[in-house]
Amino acid sequence: MRFTTVSSLFVIATFAALPASADLREDAMDMFKPLPSTIPSVQDNPITADKIDLGKALFFDPRMSASGVFSCNSCHNLATGGDDNLETSIGHGWQKGPRNSPTVLNAVFNEAQFWDGRAPDLAAQAKGPVQAGVEMANTPDNVIATLKSMQDYVDWFAASFPDESDPITFDNFAKAIEAYEATLITPAPFDAWLNGDEAALNETELAGLSLFMDKGCVSCHAGINVGGEGYYPFGLIEKPGADILPEGDVGRFAVTETADDEYVFRAAPLRNIAVTAPYFHSGKVWDLKTAVVIMGQSQLGEDINDEEADQIVAFLQTLTGEVPEVVYPILPAETSATPRPSGQIIQN
Amino acid sequence: MRFTTVSSLFVIATFAALPASADLREDAMDMFKPLPSTIPSVQDNPITADKIDLGKALFFDPRMSASGVFSCNSCHNLATGGDDNLETSIGHGWQKGPRNSPTVLNAVFNEAQFWDGRAPDLAAQAKGPVQAGVEMANTPDNVIATLKSMQDYVDWFAASFPDESDPITFDNFAKAIEAYEATLITPAPFDAWLNGDEAALNETELAGLSLFMDKGCVSCHAGINVGGEGYYPFGLIEKPGADILPEGDVGRFAVTETADDEYVFRAAPLRNIAVTAPYFHSGKVWDLKTAVVIMGQSQLGEDINDEEADQIVAFLQTLTGEVPEVVYPILPAETSATPRPSGQIIQN
Repeated sequence: MRFTTVSSLFVIATFAALPASADLREDAMDMFKPLPSTIPSVQDNPITADKIDLGKALFFDPRMSASGVFSCNSCHNLATGGDDNLETSIGHGWQKGPRNSPTVLNAVFNEAQFWDGRAPDLAAQAKGPVQAGVEMANTPDNVIATLKSMQDYVDWFAASFPDESDPITFDNFAKAIEAYEATLITPAPFDAWLNGDEAALNETELAGLSLFMDKGCVSCHAGINVGGEGYYPFGLIEKPGADILPEGDVGRFAVTETADDEYVFRAAPLRNIAVTAPYFHSGKVWDLKTAVVIMGQSQLGEDINDEEADQIVAFLQTLTGEVPEVVYPILPAETSATPRPSGQIIQN
Repeated sequence: MRFTTVSSLFVIATFAALPASADLREDAMDMFKPLPSTIPSVQDNPITADKIDLGKALFFDPRMSASGVFSCNSCHNLATGGDDNLETSIGHGWQKGPRNSPTVLNAVFNEAQFWDGRAPDLAAQAKGPVQAGVEMANTPDNVIATLKSMQDYVDWFAASFPDESDPITFDNFAKAIEAYEATLITPAPFDAWLNGDEAALNETELAGLSLFMDKGCVSCHAGINVGGEGYYPFGLIEKPGADILPEGDVGRFAVTETADDEYVFRAAPLRNIAVTAPYFHSGKVWDLKTAVVIMGQSQLGEDINDEEADQIVAFLQTLTGEVPEVVYPILPAETSATPRPSGQIIQN
């Protein structure tokens, strides 16, 4: 809480007395963790080069949607921070999804997937949007028929799941996407700093990091993904207005049906946050500094002043990482057996 | 007309008497032209590495659409043959476009762009879908405001148009896209064969090529793009049914207002045709062999038999080329000045 009550004069003095970067790093290492230098393993899904390649093709293939319009990459666009930069995604039939699309980058490190954590891992997550009527509006049967109609996919599934007699399953579809997504990790200046490169963060960014830890942001946004590890009520101290926290979306309550989980969401992982506006599950806030101030008020009861907010934003910008080079895939051509795309909207 | 009236027994004899591949190539070289080994130049638009890179970013940037959902690549997807494999594209507000999306691959070699040739070049073409209400539904002003709001784009336009004091214009936006699209050329086995590699085409494919020339397909589908060079009435000999040639679309007549141009369309360029179903401006035919038979009837008054159609399809498959490796771009992040995406449908 070093900076919370000090006058601006005292801030200057405090700067001079800042712990050496090494001490700050020691504190930070208790809270955060740099990205690994290798692709993380995922449960029950050995990652192989074949599976990554297959998963990449599936990730970019719009024929995984009923309409042939949307791929995973439509809403988790690797060109734009791994999300779609929309308030909430537009999907099948021009319907709007209920929540802001989270970034796929580094998502493998989240404790669970979706804003309410209803999918335990990326494979489970991958099955959701494909079937959601407002997103890709497809069915597992139609996905499988589509994949089986193209020989390259038949070969790629066989190579990716070599011990299985019938490798093209919806489970394996999801596992291949999970394997690919596990490769989407983005080392950032903050990782370089955590790894010992003192020059990786400048004074303003370090001041922002100190504030981030001392103000208490870190109590929800910690760990390898600077968030994505736990569930917290949005509006812990002060509930934001319905413009930001729409009343109709009760968050994790819909998953657990536990009263304590009303308006509870997974703390957003903050890697690449500077390039993934708009913010919050509602996508109602476009400016990162504004989002920081709202978080201070609603979650910490803190009035984060202008300078502090700038410093915290400077720190958050050091979480913008390098996206791995992606060679755009060439997908198999449809055959006469490929189910035809349909943009028809089926009301449930 | 070597194969048109022969019995199947005679076909076998004819095979033995086929002109040497070298002679067939000489004939073919009069009609077709292999792709060049270098990026073609385009009029009034010197192509530079900077301009190509900028054009690639623009081509993949969904923020060039009003909604933030569609990029050029949405309907001209480099992963799927440079088109969207839909009957007609789905665009802004889930509206359906009037005609099948043509491939962007090798489009630089077409005499003019769009099915009715209403755009003289790719730069003029690029301005169309961005503004079309059923496609990207944007305005030049909004495109420019979007581009000017992101420093990387400001820098990239300055580097691409170094002699201009105000380089971010809608014209230059289109020129950069044209420069990128000029790089999207796909050398195919047919090029290797035209260039002298006799083994590049097998006997069936060569028989298909002979048929393609002798039956008269080549009278419309010639040149470097095996089509894309001239305008012809769809239904020259026999008008296909309204299921394939919808009556409401009068083709080039809408451009020239000349009675002779009713139902006249630019002959489709056939490079990559095997991977760009469905076919015709209506997108109503999914099977290439069926499309070949329909063309025989409607344009040539020829009943192309099953074996001939298979051979012609085999030849057409040799036009499937290698798409240049595309590294997926990382796009600049929005700023507070970036116009917000809007999926709103404005009725004209």
